[in-house]
Amino acid sequence: MIIGHSEMITVFTSILLNKGFELEKAQLIANTFANSTFDGILSHGVNRFSLFIEYVDSGVVDPHAAPQLAFDQGVFERYDGNKGPGILNAHFCIDRAIDLSRSFGMSCVGLYNTNHWMRGGTYGWKAAEAGCISICFTNTKPNMPPWGGIDTRIGNNPIVVSIPKSDSQHLVLDMSMSMFSYGKLNEYKINADQLPFHGGYNAEGELTTDPAAILKSERVLPAAFWKGSGLSIMLDLVAGILSKGNTTSEIGKLDTESALSQVFICFDVSKLSSTLWADEIIENTMDFMKSSRLAENESIFYPGERTLKNRIKNLENGVEVNDNIWKEIIKLYEA
Amino acid sequence: MIIGHSEMITVFTSILLNKGFELEKAQLIANTFANSTFDGILSHGVNRFSLFIEYVDSGVVDPHAAPQLAFDQGVFERYDGNKGPGILNAHFCIDRAIDLSRSFGMSCVGLYNTNHWMRGGTYGWKAAEAGCISICFTNTKPNMPPWGGIDTRIGNNPIVVSIPKSDSQHLVLDMSMSMFSYGKLNEYKINADQLPFHGGYNAEGELTTDPAAILKSERVLPAAFWKGSGLSIMLDLVAGILSKGNTTSEIGKLDTESALSQVFICFDVSKLSSTLWADEIIENTMDFMKSSRLAENESIFYPGERTLKNRIKNLENGVEVNDNIWKEIIKLYEA
Repeated sequence: MIIGHSEMITVFTSILLNKGFELEKAQLIANTFANSTFDGILSHGVNRFSLFIEYVDSGVVDPHAAPQLAFDQGVFERYDGNKGPGILNAHFCIDRAIDLSRSFGMSCVGLYNTNHWMRGGTYGWKAAEAGCISICFTNTKPNMPPWGGIDTRIGNNPIVVSIPKSDSQHLVLDMSMSMFSYGKLNEYKINADQLPFHGGYNAEGELTTDPAAILKSERVLPAAFWKGSGLSIMLDLVAGILSKGNTTSEIGKLDTESALSQVFICFDVSKLSSTLWADEIIENTMDFMKSSRLAENESIFYPGERTLKNRIKNLENGVEVNDNIWKEIIKLYEA
Repeated sequence: MIIGHSEMITVFTSILLNKGFELEKAQLIANTFANSTFDGILSHGVNRFSLFIEYVDSGVVDPHAAPQLAFDQGVFERYDGNKGPGILNAHFCIDRAIDLSRSFGMSCVGLYNTNHWMRGGTYGWKAAEAGCISICFTNTKPNMPPWGGIDTRIGNNPIVVSIPKSDSQHLVLDMSMSMFSYGKLNEYKINADQLPFHGGYNAEGELTTDPAAILKSERVLPAAFWKGSGLSIMLDLVAGILSKGNTTSEIGKLDTESALSQVFICFDVSKLSSTLWADEIIENTMDFMKSSRLAENESIFYPGERTLKNRIKNLENGVEVNDNIWKEIIKLYEA
């Protein structure tokens, strides 16, 4: 089913208003879900919208909560997310980090007691649009075995790194510490596709490319084995310590994934370096990278390149959404 | 061949003094090479010492150069490394970052025009010992194909993340963006071992576990395929932009790997969070992680755990060094 951008935003906004969100908040959430979808990240866009509404209905997400300053040390601020909508809390914190970097050159904002920020890349694109390099990360519930183990004891804790360009062709990397994010596994499963590489183990403990088998066993493979496992552990603890919030082990004690910890670091390029010069070295570096001969049937992309291509294509043609997923959403819309 | 800690330091220091290093600098370099070795990272310790001396002899590394302040923005400082010894420049910059974080809570130091810092973990351990969380990274010469390509056009740009603990059992992650670092590939090759997983391609373009074949083809595999490739691109550009230094593409134009860019970020835990509380959540999080059932023939370690075990064991018993490598060093010593 093909859905247009404004149609999707209208539907999302209307549902959110019915759930009691104030207009401005409903619009920001609706826009964020829709933009992620049109950027090609359906897993954390349209495909996750109904689950978000479920979390509002069940009280995991408080639609009226707003972030509250808990600690202020100039270049560093910490906020209590008050279990508000993860998207709104994360938008607020990346905005604070951008503002602080305007004064200090760099900044860090820690956020605790928040909910899922959906697509992390959202906040990287926002920082880049504001001329900032950003490094953002979140922890999650236990959803991945540590390297050497078989039970879910660490999160797949995504990290986002973004670099601004004056022509808005920003570089944005958004990656989870599992070989494939749960969103990606679900996307492959919905489309009845096999993964291009081993993504985890089946119930028999064998490596597999079958997303359904991995989702069932919960034995996802850390990205690069011990490396993704190690980086995940560090991101969880840094997020927990800087935000004075939960680490993955505490989150695992809750009934649903909630009360997460996140970190937003910004560097204002115009203040610390030079925007024009940065543009130039990015261009040169990407030209050099793309001068490599290609592997068979492959292309070379910079991080964020395909996102931008998807955005342009989908905004023009509408985005293809799974029929059942859209029907679920329309049910909420008509309720 | 088993070498003791003080014996190794004496030999290294003596060689460095003969090469014209001042005593204090010779001692810091000798200690750093020896400590990396005794921590079990021979690849960036004793195994690389002779190459470092070659770089001094050929003028790539200037033994008398010292870092020079190029830009100061309070919480952020930038230094010209003046092509001095990478170890000394990196020690200087992590010290600056630690000091700045004492004032501001957090800090960032950019370093350009420097040389190989050898084991990145050195600076992570130092920051942790000072009570700081650190995130440090460097770029390298082009030594890895970008995902989708076959020619070396990006670096394997290691990143270090460290978290302090009051009992000095710090968490330190030190990982390159290739599945195996060149140091590790060389170590496996020296020991005539096969890699435990595919580490790259042979000359025929087939995935292989043979370190010699990969070193020959230079087609190392990025850690987690497109993920390590993407993170490598971002780390290179962030290092280049913040330090106003070379990116990997510029470094590739030089005859030898030199004039690198590095970033040192510190957070003072006592100032931004709480040391006692951080100790507690680290313990709880690691206990939870280790409560997983083990995969067959595997163990679960936190980042840095094996390093500390190696250190204790090797300081007690001496460290096993490859005969030929030590003979090379003794030749320099007796020269």
